[in-house]
Amino acid sequence: MSHTIHQKDKLIARVRRLRGQLEGIERALEGEAGCAEILRQLASVRGALGGLTAEVMEDHLRHHVMGAETEVDRRQGGEELIDVIRTYLK
Amino acid sequence: MSHTIHQKDKLIARVRRLRGQLEGIERALEGEAGCAEILRQLASVRGALGGLTAEVMEDHLRHHVMGAETEVDRRQGGEELIDVIRTYLK
Amino acid sequence: MSHTIHQKDKLIARVRRLRGQLEGIERALEGEAGCAEILRQLASVRGALGGLTAEVMEDHLRHHVMGAETEVDRRQGGEELIDVIRTYLK
Amino acid sequence: MSHTIHQKDKLIARVRRLRGQLEGIERALEGEAGCAEILRQLASVRGALGGLTAEVMEDHLRHHVMGAETEVDRRQGGEELIDVIRTYLK
Repeated sequence: MSHTIHQKDKLIARVRRLRGQLEGIERALEGEAGCAEILRQLASVRGALGGLTAEVMEDHLRHHVMGAETEVDRRQGGEELIDVIRTYLK
Repeated sequence: MSHTIHQKDKLIARVRRLRGQLEGIERALEGEAGCAEILRQLASVRGALGGLTAEVMEDHLRHHVMGAETEVDRRQGGEELIDVIRTYLK
Repeated sequence: MSHTIHQKDKLIARVRRLRGQLEGIERALEGEAGCAEILRQLASVRGALGGLTAEVMEDHLRHHVMGAETEVDRRQGGEELIDVIRTYLK
Repeated sequence: MSHTIHQKDKLIARVRRLRGQLEGIERALEGEAGCAEILRQLASVRGALGGLTAEVMEDHLRHHVMGAETEVDRRQGGEELIDVIRTYLK
């Protein structure tokens, strides 16, 4: 219960935009666009993905660590975030 | 001409897999999956995106720098790759 | 007070190892080592730097968010971590 | 011969600046600086390391791929760069 996502609609809208960017890359590949153009679009997807990931981490930190209702929830939420941080920075 | 992508079908298949992974994330968000699960899936998308980008860079390096037909093409292909490397590492 | 680093000695030892790795790169550059070798050593420094950063973030999360003594401290520690996460993922 | 680094002095100066930044972090840890400050300095080291790595890759691409003297050298230089790109993007 306590670990679902807040601001769901906003995050879903961001995932959809990302999917749209990937569709653009697929069309660019089919249309024989140049490598340099494809690589620029991939860099833009990478930026958008990083932004979305930061948003989900922030949501988690705010609602399941800072705003946790019990100390047990806070501990669990914190340990989950630590795992994620390790994955991203290693 | 000389700057289109080789191995197009393979790359398009990878972009489609990435789109499928994002659809999975959208469903997970709608289905009230936990943050930790969403973040794991986002990390997996990030890995797949990095792999795809490396593949496009490799394709570019092989065909438009190492295998360029003229020195002018090679210079252009090389400068494009340098721009991309700077974007990715800064 | 509440925002200093725990496990200081362990972190200082990691920073020193990183400095040692950079000295190795400096010697390799002076000794005319090949690019490929230098780039491998730089990749290893990048990995070590990411590990150290994850460690500091974890320390911060444990002591200044999860284990904060007051709600005001917890809020401040959390907001600081959010800023850092945004910097790292954008 | 053909695989040493060009612009050696410039690169060595950048490695030294990086070492100086790490010394600053070591002093900050010893001086009980806050986590947030340490994390900001680590982010700055990460940026500088990425810039240095891009510089070495560019040097390699210019001198050992684009400007290689023989096709055998060019192939070897290109394959080395492909290995490095894979390491950095995976």
